[in-house]
Amino acid sequence: MFIRAFFKITCINRLFLLEIVNRMHSIDELRKRFTEYLKSQSLLGEPLGLYEPNEYFIRIGGKRLRPVLLLLGTELFGGNTEQALPAALAIEYFHNFTLIHDDVMDAAPTRRGFQTLHEKYGLNAAILCGDVLYTKAFESLGKTNSAHFKKIFDLFTKTAIEVCEGQQYDIEFEKREIVEQDEYIEMIRLKSAVLLAASMQIGAILGNASDEDATRLYSYAENLGIAFQIQDDILDCYGDENLVGKQPGGDILHNKKTLLLIAAMRTGDNDLTSWLQTSNRPAEKIKAVLDIFDKHHIKEYALAERNLYVHRSINMLEEINLSEEKKNVLKSLVEYLVVREF
Amino acid sequence: MFIRAFFKITCINRLFLLEIVNRMHSIDELRKRFTEYLKSQSLLGEPLGLYEPNEYFIRIGGKRLRPVLLLLGTELFGGNTEQALPAALAIEYFHNFTLIHDDVMDAAPTRRGFQTLHEKYGLNAAILCGDVLYTKAFESLGKTNSAHFKKIFDLFTKTAIEVCEGQQYDIEFEKREIVEQDEYIEMIRLKSAVLLAASMQIGAILGNASDEDATRLYSYAENLGIAFQIQDDILDCYGDENLVGKQPGGDILHNKKTLLLIAAMRTGDNDLTSWLQTSNRPAEKIKAVLDIFDKHHIKEYALAERNLYVHRSINMLEEINLSEEKKNVLKSLVEYLVVREF
Repeated sequence: MFIRAFFKITCINRLFLLEIVNRMHSIDELRKRFTEYLKSQSLLGEPLGLYEPNEYFIRIGGKRLRPVLLLLGTELFGGNTEQALPAALAIEYFHNFTLIHDDVMDAAPTRRGFQTLHEKYGLNAAILCGDVLYTKAFESLGKTNSAHFKKIFDLFTKTAIEVCEGQQYDIEFEKREIVEQDEYIEMIRLKSAVLLAASMQIGAILGNASDEDATRLYSYAENLGIAFQIQDDILDCYGDENLVGKQPGGDILHNKKTLLLIAAMRTGDNDLTSWLQTSNRPAEKIKAVLDIFDKHHIKEYALAERNLYVHRSINMLEEINLSEEKKNVLKSLVEYLVVREF
Repeated sequence: MFIRAFFKITCINRLFLLEIVNRMHSIDELRKRFTEYLKSQSLLGEPLGLYEPNEYFIRIGGKRLRPVLLLLGTELFGGNTEQALPAALAIEYFHNFTLIHDDVMDAAPTRRGFQTLHEKYGLNAAILCGDVLYTKAFESLGKTNSAHFKKIFDLFTKTAIEVCEGQQYDIEFEKREIVEQDEYIEMIRLKSAVLLAASMQIGAILGNASDEDATRLYSYAENLGIAFQIQDDILDCYGDENLVGKQPGGDILHNKKTLLLIAAMRTGDNDLTSWLQTSNRPAEKIKAVLDIFDKHHIKEYALAERNLYVHRSINMLEEINLSEEKKNVLKSLVEYLVVREF
């Protein structure tokens, strides 16, 4: 859903970026440039059994948000995006490696409408292809021709550890009865926000931003990532099916401990407790839980929490040494990525 | 078995290293220093579900051959082993990560007499713990305080890709009817020899060896690694059970395409073909195949092939700029690691 929304907004971004800052490329252009580079760096080679499945997985898509954010980070500080392409590819490879292994752990049959790698090629292929794709991520990072390589390497490694920790918390929370909101926020921060944040910071470093500005851009994207994930939770309950691309209520059906359910559980509502134990009446369950959410103003609470992170993200921009025009680009990005699809 | 043999020889190495080059530490001392460092760098932390299984796996052992080779590489060129410890730990973490994932792919219940990680903690833990341990390997590599970091990083990454490729070939060869000897040699080179070689080269780089000498030390250890693996194949057929620690004939029973079986299959012996299709008479099968090996002088052939790589390894020493005393240390290492346990 993240990715679908991204696609939708880029049509608009293409306009606003060009209008506001005509020296910068639009999101669409950055994505096109990255996609060309991705294609030029085919993974195919011997042994094919190791590389062909990865080529399959990489090709089935995604809108390449993370590498685009990296290139944007570079452009914002006047850097050369050509030089940043190997690092952008490293981020995309890493992201896909995590998806391949996560799909095994979740026993997911499909991703982006296609068979997952383990479904198509088997468990062993998924493990080993993931491992080599991860290694290829480091290899691509190593092609970064920059005096800042060590700084980028350290950030990449730190982030990769955090993403693993986030995935572990996500797995553990599924088995737990109670998850506190701050634990949940920390989980989504680790599992997804830090990679968006590291992408932008690496881009900024490659654009020769000061350490302070690069760190602030990290915070901007980290808060944006958390807001985005909360929005994702909200959309799963209240999104327009035609815009979101899936029936609302999936998280409710599976008792997924989203920000909304965690907030609702804090009320101690007995009806909620009994619906959580019900799995045989899906439509009824979704409606009943949404009614309980309404009763306790859960949607409004979640929107307020989301906005907290939106504001943190935008406030962070004040301290960054960038022109107002460029800051407006980043503000628009928040708006279009987070405030969407109702 | 590799590891067991290593343990045995260190008692002797402790003597010969000290006698010959009294400025260097013995293998035993290097191992002790590494083990202390390994213990000081506990993996334990939050989330425990991610780190405790890794701590378990790392603790169950191994004789730390690769990190010791790395430290030896540093000492040979007069470098400071203290500075090389994080890189040595990176190699050990990487090696253990590959074992954790390989054990899943092989569905192995035990390793070193203990439960494998997936057997004790489940598939998902094995995948994710492996992933984070691999990342910790890069993190530890990043602690290398050296102007040569980028060089070490590139070698480490290249080697990791090769190890994945070697594992893929190993998996593919199991399913193939015919494997050529040169394919087999390439597989063992990738799957195990290059990591020994990279360990020594990284050590040499950290010891400020010239690029040429570091590359030659790589070749020395690469050939040594291939010889060692061939010796492993020979010992599985002809080793002394008391010394090798397992009943001979396991590879024969499982039709494992070792150098010996590959050579025997080239003879087109019809008896061999029919024994390969027999699985219900284990003791008889082992004896019959060994008889066929004898008939075609397979053991002698394998020893000659092994010696080819031993000589290549030792010949490589001639070109390295080291004292004769230090070269003798490396020659003795070949002898003790490869010529063993009959």
